[in-house]
Amino acid sequence: MTAIAITEPGGPLVLKPERRDVPTPAAGEILIRVRAAGVNRPDILQRKGAYPPPPGASDLPGLEAAGEVAAIGEGVRRWRVGETVTALTPGGGYAEYVAVHETNALPIPHGFTFTEAAAIPETFFTVWHNVFQRGGLTKGESFLVHGGSSGIGTTAIQLARALGARVFTTAGSAEKCEACVRLGAHRAINYREQDFVAAVKDETGGKGVDVILDMVGGDYVDRNYEAAAVEGRIVQIATLGGPKSTANFARLMVKRLTHTGSTLRPRSVEFKGRIASELEAQVWPLLADRRIAPVMDMIFPLKEAWRAHERMEEGEHIGKIVLDVA
Amino acid sequence: MTAIAITEPGGPLVLKPERRDVPTPAAGEILIRVRAAGVNRPDILQRKGAYPPPPGASDLPGLEAAGEVAAIGEGVRRWRVGETVTALTPGGGYAEYVAVHETNALPIPHGFTFTEAAAIPETFFTVWHNVFQRGGLTKGESFLVHGGSSGIGTTAIQLARALGARVFTTAGSAEKCEACVRLGAHRAINYREQDFVAAVKDETGGKGVDVILDMVGGDYVDRNYEAAAVEGRIVQIATLGGPKSTANFARLMVKRLTHTGSTLRPRSVEFKGRIASELEAQVWPLLADRRIAPVMDMIFPLKEAWRAHERMEEGEHIGKIVLDVA
Repeated sequence: MTAIAITEPGGPLVLKPERRDVPTPAAGEILIRVRAAGVNRPDILQRKGAYPPPPGASDLPGLEAAGEVAAIGEGVRRWRVGETVTALTPGGGYAEYVAVHETNALPIPHGFTFTEAAAIPETFFTVWHNVFQRGGLTKGESFLVHGGSSGIGTTAIQLARALGARVFTTAGSAEKCEACVRLGAHRAINYREQDFVAAVKDETGGKGVDVILDMVGGDYVDRNYEAAAVEGRIVQIATLGGPKSTANFARLMVKRLTHTGSTLRPRSVEFKGRIASELEAQVWPLLADRRIAPVMDMIFPLKEAWRAHERMEEGEHIGKIVLDVA
Repeated sequence: MTAIAITEPGGPLVLKPERRDVPTPAAGEILIRVRAAGVNRPDILQRKGAYPPPPGASDLPGLEAAGEVAAIGEGVRRWRVGETVTALTPGGGYAEYVAVHETNALPIPHGFTFTEAAAIPETFFTVWHNVFQRGGLTKGESFLVHGGSSGIGTTAIQLARALGARVFTTAGSAEKCEACVRLGAHRAINYREQDFVAAVKDETGGKGVDVILDMVGGDYVDRNYEAAAVEGRIVQIATLGGPKSTANFARLMVKRLTHTGSTLRPRSVEFKGRIASELEAQVWPLLADRRIAPVMDMIFPLKEAWRAHERMEEGEHIGKIVLDVA
């Protein structure tokens, strides 16, 4: 099969097509004939050599893929050859075939294309776990997601809005802010022009927000503590602004904040399977009704994966970047 | 009545006896004829002007007291005049009489003196909420409490041990470390001689500890993140080493830590009443059996409250400092 390999750590051009063996599905796994693969920021870190695959995982990039079931491993119960699925992959999504545990795959929501379907798993699994399970966001609460126009941001805005939260977000241009408002954000704050702490305090009568999803870190940490309400929860899913920063922990204590975070990739297939079950029960119906949908930025051919990375690193995208695997 | 007032912000000698009116118990409150009052670190901050009482609270210091019920307010159901109680007070404990909500008082455990009983509420309420409710420490988990020889520390060691955790602690001298081990700590680390991160990693086979109770903050924050296990919980109850510090939030994220904290005083009487109920059900039997007991440091007469503060600020105490109110 053709796959995109990271030939050495470096810039986008180190991503090159290679011939690889088609994987063999192990017990409990399905082999997917990939039709589309999502591009995510961890893929870029992996390409740069900063985020090595967990032990036993493929060296190929790609954390989500949609396509047809091409073969099934021993003991697979849910899927049959020919069915269409979208799945969280343990790496290896940038390829014509990928093997995943059957519980980490879900049916393609009715009416969705392969490219749309491939744009779902990584951000929906991440947002579901971090915002709802870990952050405990509930109906009627207020929510702030940074990077509202990113894949994570566009998913978080839609899910939080659909489940009854009041949604605020930050983004870096007027165009991105407009896109966020169209998706359901009650207010999008252009962080180049406005202090998000002042803006969310203003919107909440001084109270602050109940849950914050942050991928920035750096100097956002202390500002998140300021922007959070009493008993607020801040969930860290990346530290793009730098891992280390200074914060006021007396404020964390006095406001009884909870600062937590997680990364999805190293978790067990069982853990991911439990998220999949919750998503299928609670979120798949919203997708099937088109009440929510992944926001599609650009689609590139598999062999031009380097262009997809370049696009993401330029930071001009709104929503998901996807690879088409013909 | 005689009460100890903070005559102006300053050192221990600003604490002076004054004549005050005996408080009148409001609906739901009981008036306690105080026989002993506990001394706590927030009293010192209040004396220095750094921790003003919440709106509506007494300007007198003192967050816990034991004595006899001298009068009851309208609608009080549980207590009768003459019964002995120990209570969390909303301030005003350094006095011959104090009024508290009836749900914030508990019976004096069988066989306990007034001075022992007065040494219980503040640290037991604080440890129960922060270690078990907020930190979620469960049987079989590992636990690290800093300042093991303090009032909070001695209570946390005993409760965590009694409820089945493996207990580590830090203290500043060999004598204090010995006291902690006698109370049930599996290992006490003299922080002047040893790095607590290395010590707890060593004791846990590199895994780290599940729950950390910290009143230091400052450069302990980042070291707590290092010392914590995956999914570890760090609970901040003071920041004696300074409110602001630098920490590695990528570590918090990758290890899926939860950093939270709280202060007890501003919480509602209802909230404190719920903690009281849990303590009475789960901890009072341990006290009645003398399986655990407050560690008593020194007892000073009410009028010499300034000496009690001096003792606490010198940092040589082990366990609780209490005022005797004749």
